[in-house]
Amino acid sequence: MRIAVIPGDGIGTEVVPAGLEALDATAARFGLTLEFAEFSFASAGYWQRHGTMLPPDWEETLRGFDAIYFGAVGWPDVVPDHVSLWGSLLQFRRTFDQYVNLRPCRLMPGVRSPLAGREPGDIDFVVIRENTEGEYSSVGGRIFEGTDRETVLQETIMTRVGVDRVLRYAFELAARREAGHLTSATKSNGISISMPYWDERVAAMKDNFPGVRVDKFHIDALAAQFVLHPEWFDVVVASNLFGDILSDLGPACTGTLGIAPSANINPTRASPSLFEPVHGSAPDIAGQGIANPVGQIWCGSLMLDHLGHPEAAAHLLGAIEDVLAFGPRDAPLTPDLHGTGTTAELGHAIAERV
Amino acid sequence: MRIAVIPGDGIGTEVVPAGLEALDATAARFGLTLEFAEFSFASAGYWQRHGTMLPPDWEETLRGFDAIYFGAVGWPDVVPDHVSLWGSLLQFRRTFDQYVNLRPCRLMPGVRSPLAGREPGDIDFVVIRENTEGEYSSVGGRIFEGTDRETVLQETIMTRVGVDRVLRYAFELAARREAGHLTSATKSNGISISMPYWDERVAAMKDNFPGVRVDKFHIDALAAQFVLHPEWFDVVVASNLFGDILSDLGPACTGTLGIAPSANINPTRASPSLFEPVHGSAPDIAGQGIANPVGQIWCGSLMLDHLGHPEAAAHLLGAIEDVLAFGPRDAPLTPDLHGTGTTAELGHAIAERV
Ligand SMILES: CC(C)[C@H](C(=O)O)[C@@H](O)C(=O)O
Ligand SMILES: CC(C)[C@H](C(=O)O)[C@@H](O)C(=O)O
Repeated sequence: MRIAVIPGDGIGTEVVPAGLEALDATAARFGLTLEFAEFSFASAGYWQRHGTMLPPDWEETLRGFDAIYFGAVGWPDVVPDHVSLWGSLLQFRRTFDQYVNLRPCRLMPGVRSPLAGREPGDIDFVVIRENTEGEYSSVGGRIFEGTDRETVLQETIMTRVGVDRVLRYAFELAARREAGHLTSATKSNGISISMPYWDERVAAMKDNFPGVRVDKFHIDALAAQFVLHPEWFDVVVASNLFGDILSDLGPACTGTLGIAPSANINPTRASPSLFEPVHGSAPDIAGQGIANPVGQIWCGSLMLDHLGHPEAAAHLLGAIEDVLAFGPRDAPLTPDLHGTGTTAELGHAIAERV
Repeated sequence: MRIAVIPGDGIGTEVVPAGLEALDATAARFGLTLEFAEFSFASAGYWQRHGTMLPPDWEETLRGFDAIYFGAVGWPDVVPDHVSLWGSLLQFRRTFDQYVNLRPCRLMPGVRSPLAGREPGDIDFVVIRENTEGEYSSVGGRIFEGTDRETVLQETIMTRVGVDRVLRYAFELAARREAGHLTSATKSNGISISMPYWDERVAAMKDNFPGVRVDKFHIDALAAQFVLHPEWFDVVVASNLFGDILSDLGPACTGTLGIAPSANINPTRASPSLFEPVHGSAPDIAGQGIANPVGQIWCGSLMLDHLGHPEAAAHLLGAIEDVLAFGPRDAPLTPDLHGTGTTAELGHAIAERV
């Protein structure tokens, strides 16, 4: 299997090596051949050298791989975030039509939740985020610039194709899971055109999945319930923006953003899928070697699963859980996990455990 | 002072009487004259009888009052939420140009936070939400209906006037507060036209307030930090949608949505301001008499403050705090506060305390 590796910016470049070490160990144990090719584009450094985020042939290049293993991109001191993101990650998601962004939220053994009295098992759900349209569009503009009449328009665009395919994925996932429960994030009381449409498509899709229990929450109430009743949720399906918010909030409730992985999936396999931790480049802690590599390593597990190796994937996830369960006294957990370990030490411990 | 009272739907009709009792007690103690006129419009019942949410002369009628004391509206079994809300509450906010939605989030004595180890004093911030434009627009539509090409557009609209005036309010508030700290909610890395504009206006406004410490967070990270570090925040300013989400999430972190108040303010006083709890009509618990009246009562305090009676306002808020501090064993706190009291009992206890 040929994997394109893009470390990107900030802590992306620190956690990716730990992720590769764990992947190598897993591949060795399961007799898999993983070939890694590393690329320096999609980073602020590349921008400084070339004035663009990507080389002209990036699409062709990346299409030659089975998957993309991605760190984090964004370094606002050098290039504005909307330029770097629309010039790389958001571009990948769209061009490769990675229309499902799957983000597990699980309270892991050994990790302290900021929520009082929550134990592993209490929080275990998946956010399925629409990943190619919706609120993330670059359609719109500005008029009467620099005057008191200055007005800015930004279009949200939902299509039947785009909404239905991600809903179908989420319903199928819910149907396979034990709880069989799907929650739709909406805001149809306030956002009066796009969100009632979203609700309509959920109602239509529901008829195909009589075994799935369906409910919906407005995004404001849903965010509140993530904190008050995270145990209510199983599969949560959401638009691009709402999924973005919920998939940071969920991991926060499980203790740290540092462990959360995400899979940007094209379920048709017509183009490569991309695996990246939920955390960003984290300029505030970059360069110190203390970033938590677990999100990046867990991404490796999601990638192996996607590539058809569920046993290897489960084994890698198990190794993560084992090491976390030792707790900050007995394992080199990073500061966000209340330990004093470094990125490299924690990565190494997980690779060893594999 | 003449107050228009609109109980609305569901628990709105249950908590408003408790709110009025507390207001009456406060008025009596401070020698104020409050005249209440109750209206049945802006409710599902009115919709059933008239086929509209409001009478034709609603604007003229309400303009005759100094303030509007509002319960909650929305009863989706009878009228779709986007119809009832755009036909009443959202209409009021726009017509009366209540461009500031002020929502305090405070962990109160006697209230258990779902966040581990948090004590009163740890969480005490205010969300200032833009309340008339942004993501809540009814501009947009649908094309190719019922076909595979079905496409839905929903416009976000920001204006310089709209953004600057709410930012100025938030900066002025931050400048007056001890911490002097303002956090702007953005998503300029993903929402690439409207949110960079928001950031630009924040940067421009900042120059007028050298004493205010300013930072910004993307909404996903900000939601996460509300859970991980609520003590970081003082004044949080946000667009209409982001403010909506944050002002439900914040109160959830302080234990219950049931205590959170909000003030929809027209700072120019050219039209009446509106005071309503953050919680909605809550069909799930409506009719049982167990809804928490504190959010509604606290609204009375915000209203008195707005009407120029800060001492009476502070006294009413103090009475709320005193009763909550007794805890569920010694005060008739409602079930969301881990007690067994009813709406009426808790309201009565607070009025007595006043
Ligand atoms: C009911 C709904 C339209 C409203 C809003 O989103 O503004 C409510 O959630 C609020 O926060 O006041
Ligand atoms: C960096 C940003 C554009 C991105 C997003 O909003 O999609 C990130 O927050 C994520 O969740 O992957």
